[in-house]
Amino acid sequence: MTRTKLNVLCGSALLGGLSLLTVPAHADEATMEILEILRSKGDISQEKYEELKAKSEKADSEKVKITTKEKFAVKSADGNWEWGIGGRIMADYAIYDNDTDSSGMEVPGLSDGHELRRARLNMSGKFYDVWGMKLQVDFAGGAEIKDAYIDYSGFENFKVKVGNFKEPFSLEELTSSKYITFMQRSTPVNAFAPSRNLGIAGYTSFADQVTLSGGVFGDGIESGSGDDGTSYGVTGRVTFSPIHEAGRVVHLGAAVSQRNTNSNNTVRFRDRFETHVSGTRLVDTADLTNTDDVTRYGLEAAGVWDRLSLQGEYIMADVNRDNGFEDADFDGFYLTGSFFLTDDHRPYDFGPGDFDKVSPSTTVGKGGIGAWEVAARYSSLDLNDGALNGGKQDLLTVGLNWYATKNIRFMANYNQVLDLKGGAFDGAEPAAFQARAQVFW
Amino acid sequence: MTRTKLNVLCGSALLGGLSLLTVPAHADEATMEILEILRSKGDISQEKYEELKAKSEKADSEKVKITTKEKFAVKSADGNWEWGIGGRIMADYAIYDNDTDSSGMEVPGLSDGHELRRARLNMSGKFYDVWGMKLQVDFAGGAEIKDAYIDYSGFENFKVKVGNFKEPFSLEELTSSKYITFMQRSTPVNAFAPSRNLGIAGYTSFADQVTLSGGVFGDGIESGSGDDGTSYGVTGRVTFSPIHEAGRVVHLGAAVSQRNTNSNNTVRFRDRFETHVSGTRLVDTADLTNTDDVTRYGLEAAGVWDRLSLQGEYIMADVNRDNGFEDADFDGFYLTGSFFLTDDHRPYDFGPGDFDKVSPSTTVGKGGIGAWEVAARYSSLDLNDGALNGGKQDLLTVGLNWYATKNIRFMANYNQVLDLKGGAFDGAEPAAFQARAQVFW
Amino acid sequence: MTRTKLNVLCGSALLGGLSLLTVPAHADEATMEILEILRSKGDISQEKYEELKAKSEKADSEKVKITTKEKFAVKSADGNWEWGIGGRIMADYAIYDNDTDSSGMEVPGLSDGHELRRARLNMSGKFYDVWGMKLQVDFAGGAEIKDAYIDYSGFENFKVKVGNFKEPFSLEELTSSKYITFMQRSTPVNAFAPSRNLGIAGYTSFADQVTLSGGVFGDGIESGSGDDGTSYGVTGRVTFSPIHEAGRVVHLGAAVSQRNTNSNNTVRFRDRFETHVSGTRLVDTADLTNTDDVTRYGLEAAGVWDRLSLQGEYIMADVNRDNGFEDADFDGFYLTGSFFLTDDHRPYDFGPGDFDKVSPSTTVGKGGIGAWEVAARYSSLDLNDGALNGGKQDLLTVGLNWYATKNIRFMANYNQVLDLKGGAFDGAEPAAFQARAQVFW
Repeated sequence: MTRTKLNVLCGSALLGGLSLLTVPAHADEATMEILEILRSKGDISQEKYEELKAKSEKADSEKVKITTKEKFAVKSADGNWEWGIGGRIMADYAIYDNDTDSSGMEVPGLSDGHELRRARLNMSGKFYDVWGMKLQVDFAGGAEIKDAYIDYSGFENFKVKVGNFKEPFSLEELTSSKYITFMQRSTPVNAFAPSRNLGIAGYTSFADQVTLSGGVFGDGIESGSGDDGTSYGVTGRVTFSPIHEAGRVVHLGAAVSQRNTNSNNTVRFRDRFETHVSGTRLVDTADLTNTDDVTRYGLEAAGVWDRLSLQGEYIMADVNRDNGFEDADFDGFYLTGSFFLTDDHRPYDFGPGDFDKVSPSTTVGKGGIGAWEVAARYSSLDLNDGALNGGKQDLLTVGLNWYATKNIRFMANYNQVLDLKGGAFDGAEPAAFQARAQVFW
Repeated sequence: MTRTKLNVLCGSALLGGLSLLTVPAHADEATMEILEILRSKGDISQEKYEELKAKSEKADSEKVKITTKEKFAVKSADGNWEWGIGGRIMADYAIYDNDTDSSGMEVPGLSDGHELRRARLNMSGKFYDVWGMKLQVDFAGGAEIKDAYIDYSGFENFKVKVGNFKEPFSLEELTSSKYITFMQRSTPVNAFAPSRNLGIAGYTSFADQVTLSGGVFGDGIESGSGDDGTSYGVTGRVTFSPIHEAGRVVHLGAAVSQRNTNSNNTVRFRDRFETHVSGTRLVDTADLTNTDDVTRYGLEAAGVWDRLSLQGEYIMADVNRDNGFEDADFDGFYLTGSFFLTDDHRPYDFGPGDFDKVSPSTTVGKGGIGAWEVAARYSSLDLNDGALNGGKQDLLTVGLNWYATKNIRFMANYNQVLDLKGGAFDGAEPAAFQARAQVFW
Repeated sequence: MTRTKLNVLCGSALLGGLSLLTVPAHADEATMEILEILRSKGDISQEKYEELKAKSEKADSEKVKITTKEKFAVKSADGNWEWGIGGRIMADYAIYDNDTDSSGMEVPGLSDGHELRRARLNMSGKFYDVWGMKLQVDFAGGAEIKDAYIDYSGFENFKVKVGNFKEPFSLEELTSSKYITFMQRSTPVNAFAPSRNLGIAGYTSFADQVTLSGGVFGDGIESGSGDDGTSYGVTGRVTFSPIHEAGRVVHLGAAVSQRNTNSNNTVRFRDRFETHVSGTRLVDTADLTNTDDVTRYGLEAAGVWDRLSLQGEYIMADVNRDNGFEDADFDGFYLTGSFFLTDDHRPYDFGPGDFDKVSPSTTVGKGGIGAWEVAARYSSLDLNDGALNGGKQDLLTVGLNWYATKNIRFMANYNQVLDLKGGAFDGAEPAAFQARAQVFW
């Protein structure tokens, strides 16, 4: 019986070792069996056997686990300490099809070109099992800090995070840029979602179905300035996911974020048309003055059915203005559908309530062809409200993703502005063809 | 006898392995004992036994030691090669209590806010036991190189360092920002101590009581410019520490630094009032023109008695001016007292002659409450001299430190300007409340 | 026979383990021998023996290999996954001997000084054996991305690379700054070679004698701008090396690079006089307007005979201009000779067709004196053509290199401008003495 149990333990440990490619937990299984043989033959006593077995197991338990497959990570044998060093590179190329606006003027700035879109390094750690930290820097344009936080998960089913990280708002915003379906997030998400700020937040979940998160955030990582101090916001999000297994996901979410405006009392919404090589923005409210605060509302829905996935969000921004200026309302939505041509699916991560990395069922370099995915997104962003004429843009993007391995993806997107009403380029309908080579680790 | 010796060896090795959480030095102790059993039973000859034992020990000695507890480090089995990758994050928040100066004007720029104070990554290495290097970059405001040096310790009791690192001047300046008692160093230290420059220095010590260090330094890491070349300085420091054990430290030190001024022949002394979120400086000499050189003198004293520690420094700067301008003298001092509410103490590091990280006697996340420390500091900086009216500032700071683990600390400081004589804000007495979340690894 | 084979295998594995200082592949050789003894005594059956032996070997094969000697690298046991984290520091100091030009004016900007010339960190990885990536950032002046690419070597004898990396042009340019003989590359190489750009390239080789490489490249890593898009270039290189063993190398190479000019239709050639602390450039074409494209031609030759090495290149740049402007031709060459005073030689790397790091035969810190090398270089750069008066500079550099260890080098260079014809400083012949402390890992 002891023997059987031992074998079962060793078997599962070896499997774990194999799948993670770590230093195996039971490297000296042979030694253990030798001990058993010696005992059965009476060469060593039962006591001696137990003692040596314990020593051998202890030696095993002290070994550090090193992950080399797909990422570099080191973990103490007891799991209390962990270190990871990772990064990402995204190299983009874009060609633009210019278009004249209603006045016959060509949209400026749409020149073909290329860029390193993101080039990041990060280090993360776990301390005494319950403390964590992450520091991540993007070098694509100088050095810009992204994640920089400490977290504590020692409470029952509750995690606290302090530092610089994403406010809990918008499914697409919270999904890592490594895992999003298209080269850029949709215009309404880029225009409205608060993204990373310095603050403190809490996270919890219930019944493996509901997650709740919320926090208080400043407005950046630089020193405060201005007599009225910097702006602060309060953001909360709830998600409901009754199903989240491989190839079967239902996700619903809602979030709200209230933020007083900065010391200049201005706020601005704008975005590029889902392409980044060109800096041209077709829709832009410019600085709205005499604003008091902004409330953002977001609704999320997503589902995965085998190779098919659907995802959509609606976001509204209520701008509260004073000194006799009328309040303003802007909104937008997007709807994305994606389908894998290969036997693959989009994976969902219940804890943070966002999408995770695709694990191709076959791999280029191991005899496979990787995962192939086609996708389409319709997005609409309305920055017109009364006399405010930021422009309303409807945009269609179609894309092809080739996940050569879990870490390496090649992407091609074609963006077509379907309709542009108002704003500085009323009537223009430019298009973009763009491609990306991406690696993360 | 061999057996006993073996056990002793194994025992200590295992202890070492446990405390460092590395790959244990004698993972196959069981194998060794099996060999001994086989020998004692005559299954293998004494020669065979010795041979296999030697092989097993050799295999052990080739193992790489990996530290995962508190930091990530990798060391070759012979100790000749070492690699470490570390970093720190400090996120600050500050609230200001403005105050009017003697003319009734409110001090400008004291707006509440937050910032990432420091966000650094570093890599260090050891080569053939005697060579070392370190490269450290701070990303809190773009990318700024901090330590970047090569050192050699192959001489008898003498180390040489070349590259960018701190000039040996001031106990508080030399103590890492990870380990200082308050959120900011004291004003006289920030105003006068030379900190990091590109240069070469030597380090030695005597009788485990005295350290000597000195070097020649340029004035930064950027290319030289200006017709007269860049400024150079010579700095030396001596420390005397007859006692430096856990909970018992006596430290005395003196340093001098002579530096010719830059090609513009200007020099400037100034500092914030021990808070960094606001950039406002109450004392500031502005650029002193027609300066020839500056000589800085520093005196240091510190002591630790169990939970109590005291630390103070006096620094003077002699500015030598020509073209008929009168020489100028500025000075300042600070006195810090700190007391641990828990059973902890400040550790001292004799080699560099500075304070080291606190190791809390209990840890949050392991059933403990961490280390709790209260502290107060009185600092005075006098930038008035004759007609020069930079201002004289007296400042009191009180602080509370919570060391949740060795790596994670939360800090709260309250700063009150007690007296401000002269300078641009004569008579103003603003205050600050500030808090920090800090992790290093 | 099995026994002998096993010993041979183990022997070589142990040797591998020793030389690389990794976790040895056969740590439990003793266990294997114990198994054999138990079998030979009949304590275990042949089947049991085979089973346990297989388990032990499997456990070994799952071990991760860690390199700590000279660099930090981690490799999966099957060699499919690899991670490396490296960097370099170069700290320079320079003194200038000014000189008056033909009009009696002193050359400006030649002030003595120092700088961190390079301070880089990089991370590289291998995925499923055939995919690779590298991300490298230089922090010497803010943060600047150097290498940032993905490569694939799954084709038969063919590698593809996409991202930011060096165009295949010029032996000296392709040789890493860690391994070049002098502190700066020669003026014609700096003035003409395209260096790193965002693009895609292919690499192959034949008969261990010939390498071919070529690619298409944009002009940097930032977003495109300008109505006509950014400039693009096509570059190809062939090398022929019939001999490349330790201490015996023959290398011949030729490269061509055609590039249309940027949207401003300007191009500029210039360089410092092989010293970087001062930014002064004695030769400079200034912006050539109305240019259409530039074609660069390069010829390379190098040889190593024991301690002696010779290396030379000739580069020409043909500027094609329109709107009635005459085409322009510029060219330059250099010739380097180096000789080791110790029993060392320059190593060559056939695959990329460039020079590699020197491995000193003795090491400082291990009882040796390191490798000592003297070198001289004559370089000539002609930026005069017809009415274009960029200047023609002849320069002699002599150098002394002390390779204390494989990773650490100290360098001293003396540069003397022999002749300067034309340009802004006609007739000036300044000199520089400069020294560097360098470490890479």
